[in-house]
Amino acid sequence: MTPETTRRTVLRGTAAAAALAAAAAARATEAQAAQPGARELEIGILLYDGFSLLDPTGPAEVLSRLPGANVTMIAERRGQVRTDTGSVAVTADRSIAEVGRLDVLLVPGGGNRGTVGAMENQALLRWIRDIHRHTTWTTSVCTGALVLAAAGLLDGRQATTYWASADYLQSEFDVVYRPQRYVRSGKIITAAGVSAGLDMALYLASLIAGEPTAKAVQLAVEYDPQPPFHAGNAADADPQLKAFALRLLAESQV
Amino acid sequence: MTPETTRRTVLRGTAAAAALAAAAAARATEAQAAQPGARELEIGILLYDGFSLLDPTGPAEVLSRLPGANVTMIAERRGQVRTDTGSVAVTADRSIAEVGRLDVLLVPGGGNRGTVGAMENQALLRWIRDIHRHTTWTTSVCTGALVLAAAGLLDGRQATTYWASADYLQSEFDVVYRPQRYVRSGKIITAAGVSAGLDMALYLASLIAGEPTAKAVQLAVEYDPQPPFHAGNAADADPQLKAFALRLLAESQV
Repeated sequence: MTPETTRRTVLRGTAAAAALAAAAAARATEAQAAQPGARELEIGILLYDGFSLLDPTGPAEVLSRLPGANVTMIAERRGQVRTDTGSVAVTADRSIAEVGRLDVLLVPGGGNRGTVGAMENQALLRWIRDIHRHTTWTTSVCTGALVLAAAGLLDGRQATTYWASADYLQSEFDVVYRPQRYVRSGKIITAAGVSAGLDMALYLASLIAGEPTAKAVQLAVEYDPQPPFHAGNAADADPQLKAFALRLLAESQV
Repeated sequence: MTPETTRRTVLRGTAAAAALAAAAAARATEAQAAQPGARELEIGILLYDGFSLLDPTGPAEVLSRLPGANVTMIAERRGQVRTDTGSVAVTADRSIAEVGRLDVLLVPGGGNRGTVGAMENQALLRWIRDIHRHTTWTTSVCTGALVLAAAGLLDGRQATTYWASADYLQSEFDVVYRPQRYVRSGKIITAAGVSAGLDMALYLASLIAGEPTAKAVQLAVEYDPQPPFHAGNAADADPQLKAFALRLLAESQV
């Protein structure tokens, strides 16, 4: 076996992976042949200037592994969209004008500037309302719940959001905040802050494709979390740590 | 209070957030005034065609919250770099030719095609070796460990990688695989698959900025993981689930 051959199969050693890849390719071809009109699962993730990087990318990593899933990054205009820190840009491959239907919509959160910008962008809110009418699932991560609320989609519902935005969500909108990793209310699923999008996406994956597939996706992304500290739950955090966390956020944002 | 005023402070309600933001701004100004030559912490994340989305974006979310941290996405050439699924592009803001020094280097993993491409790209491997000479920390996520190994950086070391690449890592290189979320060997830290980059980044944050800051970052990104299933550990997975996970990966990649 030449070095080139072994290098082509870095997953599962050598022969096993080659066999696996061949089998997968054969299955994919069969599936296409058997269902020439089989519809893809259209998953759209809305980006806006000042979004938080992990909010859309965590769920995209998970959901893009579902059979037949097609994940598309969408924004008001095509092109690069910068995060709240200004240091990373993700490409929106479609503008909202180009997307009229989605099976799944995900609205990420952002820093204060980005979230407020999205909440006050009437074109964006109108598009969210239009898309929501025909989705199977409408979802948010972090302060994305505030954007859904500003679009009027959370009226009279239970929802979760970023821990530091819970008071705002409840005081400004007709929403009952639930301090959970994700909350389902009808076809709307909201996730808590930033990293909670991963947990929500796995739950969503089970709703879309069933529990065995969701578990396989979890193994595919090796999501067996073992953070070195246990400081991520705001309910257990003292006021100093909360203030420190918000200061780090404020100072890292542009 | 007008709606505009309340909307400007969606974190921590209203007055508290405004006061916080003002205090943070004042502190930032003071810090700049006090240390006009204070060096930023330069964190570079290498992208290559076919990388896995969460590998660089999870750690970028965490590390970009560190005081003075400057996270830059880097690739062989500036511009859009597509993931293994082809569905998302992240912008490389700098080319490798433009980056001669980094405090922290992170090499993400990718699908089979992307990983092999990086392992066989001599310009990339040369750059990794050059940068590594002066880093404080050189790190990888998932099959990024194979790229570090191909660059010769893991010789004689312990390391971790994606569960399905462990055999390959051990058989092709002089490396002892350790089935941990992250493994430190000198100034090199390798993480297990995809989502393990989050755990590794928090550990790295504590090494860089101390445990209190790392904990504040953990709270800032609300990293209190509660996956709906417990299927992410390959050591506990049966052969069927492993095969299913690898099939989903193979079929989702382009």
